[in-house]
Amino acid sequence: MSTPARRAVEERRDQLLELGLRLFGSKPYDEISIDEIARLAGMSKGLLYHYFPSKRDFYVACLRAASLQLRRLMRSDPALPPMEQVRGGLSVYLDHVKANPAKNQAFVRAGIGSDPEVIEVMEETRRAVWESLLAGMGATEDEHLLRFAVRGWVRFVEVTALDWAQSGQVEKEALIDVCLAVLGTAIERSRRAR
Amino acid sequence: MSTPARRAVEERRDQLLELGLRLFGSKPYDEISIDEIARLAGMSKGLLYHYFPSKRDFYVACLRAASLQLRRLMRSDPALPPMEQVRGGLSVYLDHVKANPAKNQAFVRAGIGSDPEVIEVMEETRRAVWESLLAGMGATEDEHLLRFAVRGWVRFVEVTALDWAQSGQVEKEALIDVCLAVLGTAIERSRRAR
Repeated sequence: MSTPARRAVEERRDQLLELGLRLFGSKPYDEISIDEIARLAGMSKGLLYHYFPSKRDFYVACLRAASLQLRRLMRSDPALPPMEQVRGGLSVYLDHVKANPAKNQAFVRAGIGSDPEVIEVMEETRRAVWESLLAGMGATEDEHLLRFAVRGWVRFVEVTALDWAQSGQVEKEALIDVCLAVLGTAIERSRRAR
Repeated sequence: MSTPARRAVEERRDQLLELGLRLFGSKPYDEISIDEIARLAGMSKGLLYHYFPSKRDFYVACLRAASLQLRRLMRSDPALPPMEQVRGGLSVYLDHVKANPAKNQAFVRAGIGSDPEVIEVMEETRRAVWESLLAGMGATEDEHLLRFAVRGWVRFVEVTALDWAQSGQVEKEALIDVCLAVLGTAIERSRRAR
């Protein structure tokens, strides 16, 4: 395959992922058919299958693309103080959860959310977040309790963010303050216990 | 059905649940067959099916029994200060996670862990814990942020407990102290933000 042809394929793939992100974000997985995807993409089902062998594969690829996109957006200026970096990342994350309630529900609920590859993408995303947090605070491999606490905090944020986005009752800044205070206590107490 | 006969059936059912708890705690779900359960229970498969129509039903019933057992054990003396009650419950919970690593893994991982009824039992267990916590602190319905934070904290404990049980590297008391400090901060900051 020539280089321009390869580039065209990659561009087409990216466009499909863009379409998938919008589509899977707008309604439940089970209500989306391969026919609809092909129609919206303006291509034949045969060609679509050439890019993604099944709806599930397409979904997992979209999820992975969403995860990478989110992680890029959450990356903060490394010149900022660590807690300010976390604050910036949290703010981006909460906007993302608010903007994508359906997608995030699917993450947490049963159905495709229990697919091993979907779970893998979720775990990858969490791991990227906590590894960057631990690296930012210079955590060593043997700071076990600190590692548990930071991993637990990532889940704390996930759960509170979903509740927050669904309720629409609480200011974003108030939730961010609680999350940062909880992280601060988790770090401080874990390190004190060593 | 006469009352003694009904009582005999209930006793037999309880014995089966006891057996199931030991069995499902000792090895993965997929490695356990209906034949093995019937053999260990000393009854025919036909009779076993009379109590539980499938292995999955038996598993869900065992899980529900385990959840009730755990919640009973976690109940603290209501005369104690609230945080001491939480400390007692945490201690029981951590012993439980340490003693049942296989079962708890199954909870969190894919496989039967993604069964809707299994997820329902997990959610019931979490809800019982956070509702009792919220009741203990006299939380009102409109303390949204506090409610999110307490629910998030329950997940924080779940994740850190699993990590802790798997690593065997950290003193139980150290983890309890971190969990309590995190809960204290979560409550205090959520209420301050009102």
